[in-house]
Amino acid sequence: MTDATTRPLAAIVLAAGKGTRMKSDTHKVLHPIAGRPMLLHLLAAVGELAPERVVVVTGAGREQVEAAVAPLGIATALQADQLGTGHAVRQAEAALAGFAGDVLVLYGDVPLVTAATMRRMLDRLRGGDAPAAVVLGFRPADPGAYGRVIADADGRIDRMVEYKDATEAERAETLCNSGLMAARAEDLWALLARVGNDNAAGEYYLPDIVMLASADGRGSAVIETGADEVAGVNSRGELAAVEAGWQARRRVEAMRDGVTLVAPDTVWFAHDTVLGRDVTVEPNVVFGPGVRVSDGAVIHAFSHLEGATVGEGAEVGPYARLRPGAVMGAHAKVGNFVEMKKAVLGEGAKASHLTYLGDADVGPGVNIGAGTITCNYDGYLKYRTTIGAGAFIGSNSALVAPVSIGAGAIVGAGSVITGDVEADALALARGRQESRPGWAARFRTMMKAKKAAR
Amino acid sequence: MTDATTRPLAAIVLAAGKGTRMKSDTHKVLHPIAGRPMLLHLLAAVGELAPERVVVVTGAGREQVEAAVAPLGIATALQADQLGTGHAVRQAEAALAGFAGDVLVLYGDVPLVTAATMRRMLDRLRGGDAPAAVVLGFRPADPGAYGRVIADADGRIDRMVEYKDATEAERAETLCNSGLMAARAEDLWALLARVGNDNAAGEYYLPDIVMLASADGRGSAVIETGADEVAGVNSRGELAAVEAGWQARRRVEAMRDGVTLVAPDTVWFAHDTVLGRDVTVEPNVVFGPGVRVSDGAVIHAFSHLEGATVGEGAEVGPYARLRPGAVMGAHAKVGNFVEMKKAVLGEGAKASHLTYLGDADVGPGVNIGAGTITCNYDGYLKYRTTIGAGAFIGSNSALVAPVSIGAGAIVGAGSVITGDVEADALALARGRQESRPGWAARFRTMMKAKKAAR
Amino acid sequence: MTDATTRPLAAIVLAAGKGTRMKSDTHKVLHPIAGRPMLLHLLAAVGELAPERVVVVTGAGREQVEAAVAPLGIATALQADQLGTGHAVRQAEAALAGFAGDVLVLYGDVPLVTAATMRRMLDRLRGGDAPAAVVLGFRPADPGAYGRVIADADGRIDRMVEYKDATEAERAETLCNSGLMAARAEDLWALLARVGNDNAAGEYYLPDIVMLASADGRGSAVIETGADEVAGVNSRGELAAVEAGWQARRRVEAMRDGVTLVAPDTVWFAHDTVLGRDVTVEPNVVFGPGVRVSDGAVIHAFSHLEGATVGEGAEVGPYARLRPGAVMGAHAKVGNFVEMKKAVLGEGAKASHLTYLGDADVGPGVNIGAGTITCNYDGYLKYRTTIGAGAFIGSNSALVAPVSIGAGAIVGAGSVITGDVEADALALARGRQESRPGWAARFRTMMKAKKAAR
Repeated sequence: MTDATTRPLAAIVLAAGKGTRMKSDTHKVLHPIAGRPMLLHLLAAVGELAPERVVVVTGAGREQVEAAVAPLGIATALQADQLGTGHAVRQAEAALAGFAGDVLVLYGDVPLVTAATMRRMLDRLRGGDAPAAVVLGFRPADPGAYGRVIADADGRIDRMVEYKDATEAERAETLCNSGLMAARAEDLWALLARVGNDNAAGEYYLPDIVMLASADGRGSAVIETGADEVAGVNSRGELAAVEAGWQARRRVEAMRDGVTLVAPDTVWFAHDTVLGRDVTVEPNVVFGPGVRVSDGAVIHAFSHLEGATVGEGAEVGPYARLRPGAVMGAHAKVGNFVEMKKAVLGEGAKASHLTYLGDADVGPGVNIGAGTITCNYDGYLKYRTTIGAGAFIGSNSALVAPVSIGAGAIVGAGSVITGDVEADALALARGRQESRPGWAARFRTMMKAKKAAR
Repeated sequence: MTDATTRPLAAIVLAAGKGTRMKSDTHKVLHPIAGRPMLLHLLAAVGELAPERVVVVTGAGREQVEAAVAPLGIATALQADQLGTGHAVRQAEAALAGFAGDVLVLYGDVPLVTAATMRRMLDRLRGGDAPAAVVLGFRPADPGAYGRVIADADGRIDRMVEYKDATEAERAETLCNSGLMAARAEDLWALLARVGNDNAAGEYYLPDIVMLASADGRGSAVIETGADEVAGVNSRGELAAVEAGWQARRRVEAMRDGVTLVAPDTVWFAHDTVLGRDVTVEPNVVFGPGVRVSDGAVIHAFSHLEGATVGEGAEVGPYARLRPGAVMGAHAKVGNFVEMKKAVLGEGAKASHLTYLGDADVGPGVNIGAGTITCNYDGYLKYRTTIGAGAFIGSNSALVAPVSIGAGAIVGAGSVITGDVEADALALARGRQESRPGWAARFRTMMKAKKAAR
Repeated sequence: MTDATTRPLAAIVLAAGKGTRMKSDTHKVLHPIAGRPMLLHLLAAVGELAPERVVVVTGAGREQVEAAVAPLGIATALQADQLGTGHAVRQAEAALAGFAGDVLVLYGDVPLVTAATMRRMLDRLRGGDAPAAVVLGFRPADPGAYGRVIADADGRIDRMVEYKDATEAERAETLCNSGLMAARAEDLWALLARVGNDNAAGEYYLPDIVMLASADGRGSAVIETGADEVAGVNSRGELAAVEAGWQARRRVEAMRDGVTLVAPDTVWFAHDTVLGRDVTVEPNVVFGPGVRVSDGAVIHAFSHLEGATVGEGAEVGPYARLRPGAVMGAHAKVGNFVEMKKAVLGEGAKASHLTYLGDADVGPGVNIGAGTITCNYDGYLKYRTTIGAGAFIGSNSALVAPVSIGAGAIVGAGSVITGDVEADALALARGRQESRPGWAARFRTMMKAKKAAR
């Protein structure tokens, strides 16, 4: 027998359920929470424990699930018929052939279980009394029809009962079975082989292994966690509830780490948002995946960031949209109705109003006037715009890429720049102003008559 | 006697109250909930029961109420003096002259009563024991000073008491009178004629008919509904609360029907919003009246839609504003800081950034560059812009309507297009670029001196 | 002895605490609530009582606090070492030399105490029984480890006990000590001089003066206030909670005063926001400091206002940003993706889409087309744009300031206006349109080949 503390780990993730109540063409476990499919939240937590093997059990919509986990090099096993959780776990047996160690059984639609909780389950499994199985229990606000776990104060399970089979006394127990379980591989397969389907639904139930082990004289154990952590997702309403719980916890973390959230309930984080110290986030800000914000930056109201890097003391918004590849240098400023995409804004550079910066390299200290557009696309390819340090781009200019504006150059307002501008030059590309005196007065007279004649 | 189940229906809606606590120049019953005046919510519910007649009783601000119901062909009756609910109902008697059937008494400021509940009231009225009146009761979280309904388990009313007249035992009753009532027309008029005003306020109270009928040996009945449904609006705070309740219920419905709401509390629906299956709505989206969104479309954060149609799989926002007459084809895309109004965007067409599309017909597959403006107004009339399939409009272009861009044409970035462009042509309308070498450097030297001299 | 009711007032505000849990480079008492540093909220409330002297006791980060109060002419005193609240108050003694009257002891991180409550404390102090000190008590939802105040029904204090020294019976008391106190200067200094530091922390505690006075045979008194009012800020989470409480109260006030908030929880006010009657505010609106909105104006969703004045019946947004110096006349309209800064928009004038109005004077009835930009900055100085009454600015125009457009003039769409336009004239400044037939078709063929060759 290997040393328990170093026994290898495998995880089986059940993801065969159809998710009918989601009313969606997207598989239930692929609906996102905090910008990441829920299955990937769970796999990331499992990953922290460095498992030797992971098997995802698929069923309806298997192609979607397979496509989602394939890039991670994770194996799948098909449960062709829905014959219960015990049956589902057995479908992973072949994929785990030759594996000797501990197995965690997880659920793709119970996505926010932490690595720390999984580790507690394994620690308990590896404890001196060597339980046959470790069950993860929780105490819901309303225990309702959950299966109950009857255990002593040390978590030694006396019995587990389905709600419908439970006596009044058993129903008064508040400790419920989350369905998550840990067991040694050899125990799991041996016990599962003996689980029958002699019940109303004709299904094979995973929890039955606890009573089978008990009949063999082997004990099982339960450890507890909070109900939030094992919240399952079977409907859009539950999806929203799990998202809300995740966001609420993340907001508290951000504030604890020195971020001011003026209205915490109106800031949405992604799973990987990183915010520095003394960052201020005003009301109504959405962080998509891949955002890093450095110390002292201010994210004004109504901003939307995704895949963006915001430098120290930089200022974003209100109404700024930073798309993937947006990189703002220290003390740079992006103002209202400005979009950045695959664009770098140098230290102290500013794009304050009504601007599109796409595929652009903007040097330090540059001032981009209101209404400036980088014309980066010709319908087929994208082209880059380069603007040198200290240049000044007049308002309402169009920079037709590929184009380069030299350092210190000035582009006159309203210009359409199609050729490179040399450093320190002034470039103008606009029509000459002409005037037609009295024209407007005559026009008004005519239009009034026209409207009157209608 | 006509068959009870087919007796005709009339509704009297009381809307004479001033609504002083609203502190508004707008009549209380015309303040909107979910984008529709509250009185019209109620009239729409009544309408589902196909009433033979509807009379709205008006008083202060009657002109506003009359103007609101006139387009619906609904009669009004004036209550010149505010002499109580019994008096108010009597004002409708003349308008209902000759009507023989059942009468519902409703309140313009209790706007969210459903047709189903009204039908339950009528069913009870038409029941075998033929009650003289049916009262709609509810159990508020805090019964406070509401009048109490003392009834048996089958809803047969023993008595109704005003809070101030109630004994301690009666006050312990939690079933309260909402004020809504159903009665046969002949009973209603006969009983109301006998209601007196011998009370502190000198008013005629509608509920008094219950005790009068009882004195005649005729029973009345109460049916119950939830407190939310009979919430009344007497202040802006109550208006906001009723709106919040409406929105909360609508969000649950949307999720149940297969819509993902990432942050349900931040999505506002209108009374007639229609969303398809697998639609995703990100945080902070406002739906004004008249919006239909097809299956699989995504509404990104901070979008505002009103009177708009969004095709299958189309993508809206973030920060998109669709105004009345905006029609997006399947898989079309409207991006950030883009406004559409009376404009059609063909299948797969895109307007991704900083654009105004007003009075425009845009063909399938068209790409509208950033900063494009349709110049649709000359101060007097609006003109249309037509863009053929597959055309490409360069960024920062102005299309001066009426103008037509042919299929497959390209408009160069920064152009001001005033004349039609033929199919497959390139159109340019912009200044020629010129350069003044060293000008910017000299300008900086001059300006620095100028600022220093200040 | 002076007449108690006219005795002069001094306030001591303790602001020496580091605020380590804020994890901020900004001093704790300078973090803003409703757009104003919390210390200034407190000083404004004190100011309503017209104190003769105010002393702010500083410590860590004193430079920041001194800089914040210096413009108000308020004195500071340094507490070099953190030796407890009693010690902190004593540091203000020198600054109050010669002052004979009543002293309020307040806390910079308990910012929302009202002038009315302070006045109640003083009234009690000046009462017939002349208490040695008046303590401000409160009853928190969870009294936890707060010091308890044991007093009779009339607020006469029997004793005050630290939680850790309290008996079970004392802990069952729910009246807690907020720390705020009032005392006559002569009593305060005499008693404080006798306070020792013989306790575990070796600190001098201000509340000890109550028991010292008691030992002298002098009574003290407690008055109560709500827990919200004395909520303290020691972390970003508490800062957010105090902000949320402030906003919630402000929203109720606004609705009570006749403002419609469609979704109250999504409107953020500043400390000085002024809204008229029948103003409607749609969901998701942020008011920064310095905003006044007149009767009947509508603020549409997603708008952001700061330092702006909105005229009667004017319409703002959605997605409008009004920055300091924005002044909208009656019935003026600013639409989506429009920014105003130091700009006046005359009565009935409109800027409906995608516009930047900076440093501009726009006359009544002017129509500013979509995409118009005032080019107000050359990198060194700002210049003004003037537009006369009834002028019409075509879409996508750039107005290069300093420039003046005469009354009734028309600027053609897409123009770059660099010179003044006379009244009633038409000004055009744009390129001439040219066409290259078939060019787009050839371009597509070429680009497709290019992409295929990759």
